[in-house]
Amino acid sequence: MIKMKTVLLTGFDPFDGAAINPSWEAVRRLDGWSGDGEGAAFRVVARELPCVFGRSIEALLGSVDALRPDIVIAVGQAGGRPEISIERIAINVDDARIVDNAGQQPVDVPIVLDGPAAYFTTLPIKAMAAAIREQGIQAGVSQTAGTFVCNHVFYALMHHLRGLPVKAGFIHVPFLPEQAAAWPVQPTASMTLDEIVAGLRVAVEVAVGVELDVVLAGGATH
Amino acid sequence: MIKMKTVLLTGFDPFDGAAINPSWEAVRRLDGWSGDGEGAAFRVVARELPCVFGRSIEALLGSVDALRPDIVIAVGQAGGRPEISIERIAINVDDARIVDNAGQQPVDVPIVLDGPAAYFTTLPIKAMAAAIREQGIQAGVSQTAGTFVCNHVFYALMHHLRGLPVKAGFIHVPFLPEQAAAWPVQPTASMTLDEIVAGLRVAVEVAVGVELDVVLAGGATH
Amino acid sequence: MIKMKTVLLTGFDPFDGAAINPSWEAVRRLDGWSGDGEGAAFRVVARELPCVFGRSIEALLGSVDALRPDIVIAVGQAGGRPEISIERIAINVDDARIVDNAGQQPVDVPIVLDGPAAYFTTLPIKAMAAAIREQGIQAGVSQTAGTFVCNHVFYALMHHLRGLPVKAGFIHVPFLPEQAAAWPVQPTASMTLDEIVAGLRVAVEVAVGVELDVVLAGGATH
Amino acid sequence: MIKMKTVLLTGFDPFDGAAINPSWEAVRRLDGWSGDGEGAAFRVVARELPCVFGRSIEALLGSVDALRPDIVIAVGQAGGRPEISIERIAINVDDARIVDNAGQQPVDVPIVLDGPAAYFTTLPIKAMAAAIREQGIQAGVSQTAGTFVCNHVFYALMHHLRGLPVKAGFIHVPFLPEQAAAWPVQPTASMTLDEIVAGLRVAVEVAVGVELDVVLAGGATH
Repeated sequence: MIKMKTVLLTGFDPFDGAAINPSWEAVRRLDGWSGDGEGAAFRVVARELPCVFGRSIEALLGSVDALRPDIVIAVGQAGGRPEISIERIAINVDDARIVDNAGQQPVDVPIVLDGPAAYFTTLPIKAMAAAIREQGIQAGVSQTAGTFVCNHVFYALMHHLRGLPVKAGFIHVPFLPEQAAAWPVQPTASMTLDEIVAGLRVAVEVAVGVELDVVLAGGATH
Repeated sequence: MIKMKTVLLTGFDPFDGAAINPSWEAVRRLDGWSGDGEGAAFRVVARELPCVFGRSIEALLGSVDALRPDIVIAVGQAGGRPEISIERIAINVDDARIVDNAGQQPVDVPIVLDGPAAYFTTLPIKAMAAAIREQGIQAGVSQTAGTFVCNHVFYALMHHLRGLPVKAGFIHVPFLPEQAAAWPVQPTASMTLDEIVAGLRVAVEVAVGVELDVVLAGGATH
Repeated sequence: MIKMKTVLLTGFDPFDGAAINPSWEAVRRLDGWSGDGEGAAFRVVARELPCVFGRSIEALLGSVDALRPDIVIAVGQAGGRPEISIERIAINVDDARIVDNAGQQPVDVPIVLDGPAAYFTTLPIKAMAAAIREQGIQAGVSQTAGTFVCNHVFYALMHHLRGLPVKAGFIHVPFLPEQAAAWPVQPTASMTLDEIVAGLRVAVEVAVGVELDVVLAGGATH
Repeated sequence: MIKMKTVLLTGFDPFDGAAINPSWEAVRRLDGWSGDGEGAAFRVVARELPCVFGRSIEALLGSVDALRPDIVIAVGQAGGRPEISIERIAINVDDARIVDNAGQQPVDVPIVLDGPAAYFTTLPIKAMAAAIREQGIQAGVSQTAGTFVCNHVFYALMHHLRGLPVKAGFIHVPFLPEQAAAWPVQPTASMTLDEIVAGLRVAVEVAVGVELDVVLAGGATH
């Protein structure tokens, strides 16, 4: 009998004065989606997280504990990046350049006191990026998820799941075209919602089906 | 009786060592496309231009003289730009940073001796950009088509058609995702071929149907 | 007897909510500077222009008529550009993405009714850029001065001086480091005031001493 | 009696086909520099590292063991970044997008087998960045040192010194203007060697004199 895997996807609500957040717009479209990846059936559950330090972790870990998913992928917006970027590592620090949706702006505060400096994702990120690119959608591996709420939930997630057989990680998605159009000064990169959704579908299928990541260069010289 | 308008679209062959040029890939998909824009039926004829100073002009003006189109839109690649950018103005100078496909590299040479410094496009560029954006595809007006072969054919086209009732202009399109993926150093903007083709369709329909351009800010502070 | 040439330099007051404008900060430091360029002595007069459509032209042309300079270089800020960029061409359109210091925001309005589409600068821009670079300061030729107040005064200046033996043009300078440090989202290019001033000194000396520009590639592929 | 602190600075040799590396050009100018920072005298020793995986670590740790410095700052080039960027964290992975100077290109290989995922720098990075900015030189904190040889030596350095009372970290410096001028496609950020050297001087003085870092936002939203 094939085990049905549960995939938890999360997106954020809009922040920094924006009216929309492509991460939740994309993730909500995948709620209830199920399929049969290589070697395993899966079912997606989507949840929205508030863009707030602390409360976002409560919401995410609450869903994790309630759903006991096999795979968790948190998704957030990286305005200005031209590709779906799959994060390699979460670091143990909050350092907010702007306030969150509750007006908080922590600076150089550890996310987990005495926690390790960082956790690597346990997702097959090179295989995910390559498979998305094969669909003609721009994707790559990123070496930093920043130090705002995205990295905050990513680190907390990896810390919570340490030692457990749950694959987890974080994906940043670009602005939507209408967000880029409103960007001041100069034209900025974006991606349509259809492409983001299609890219996340591929990411889920690879995360479900691939056990061992492929060896493909995906680094940065700096 | 409705007059059938002829729309000439051109794209370039690959240059600078590339294997593909999204301008021709997109334009060729529209060859033979016909429709009924607002107030006028149209038929599209697509032609490929060589990325070569001089010869590209011969090919373009040869097609113009043979087809006697009502509208001409030349299309080229602007690698790194994140949007379909509709050019406002063509300037009377060739200044090549790289060699063309015949090994030529003119520097500060006028395209038309004693020609005016520049020609504005006669396309309704603000309406075109707005209509493309309404389809969720990133588009904007650009203040420079550069000084390479794209600007070269754009200037020659406007000079050739001066005083004639033919609307003409130039559109730059982004890299395809696979071109961006091969870009060194850092992730670079791109657009899928489907989006480029869809954007060009809208551009053609607006060029056919709109007589007077809309007043919408589309400038640059520098 | 050597004729003393008069060089008029102008800079703008701060705009778009900024507290400082590097163009005026740099230009004011050169007020009264005199020297003996190749083949000609010169004296610099500096004037500040308001960042306001219309009134900026009045101020600039008023100074031109009063001082009867041999050379005019208007200088403005191009926030985000990494180099001193010497403009090649002024185009006959105002299209403001933001309001000027008087709250005006013209869109697609000609600067000179029935004026030509554009004027090329009459400065030896390639020689100027090369000489600045030889001092270890980043410089290049730009194909667009935008469509805001910088291009506005540049076009009016060239139109006013057409046919007269006065060399004229426009130079854009980067943000100062403190402006870049305040820039949101991501690190942005800047240049120190000392470098900007040193670069403008070289620009003036070349403009005074060089009659025929050098042939050096300085174009853009798009 | 005041203890004389030893500060070890390292730079890299040129890589990726370049003729020069600003990190070594700047660091070599500080060899033998001594001063009296707040509360402590210091003397700088400069060493060049090969841009080679493995051998660079041997060279760096060999110098550390021989000199027993109180402070170690490794410096490398980050072409395209507009500021002196002081790295926050080193991560335990090599993932080379290009080959090193010995032709090696490791992908997803740990630097230290079974080492922790990352180490935070022990330098007062916020105070260093702020002090450099006060000198009118662009500086900031970076959340990623990449996954090439820079991060490689940074991680090995922090691992080697773990638990010891030695402050250590990594600083990335921009291209020099002549490197930026040779950059294809578009103008790219740079910094003069004088500014880089001046910035590193400030960095050393703060590293020597400041025990507790200041609380100043220096994060990234992504």
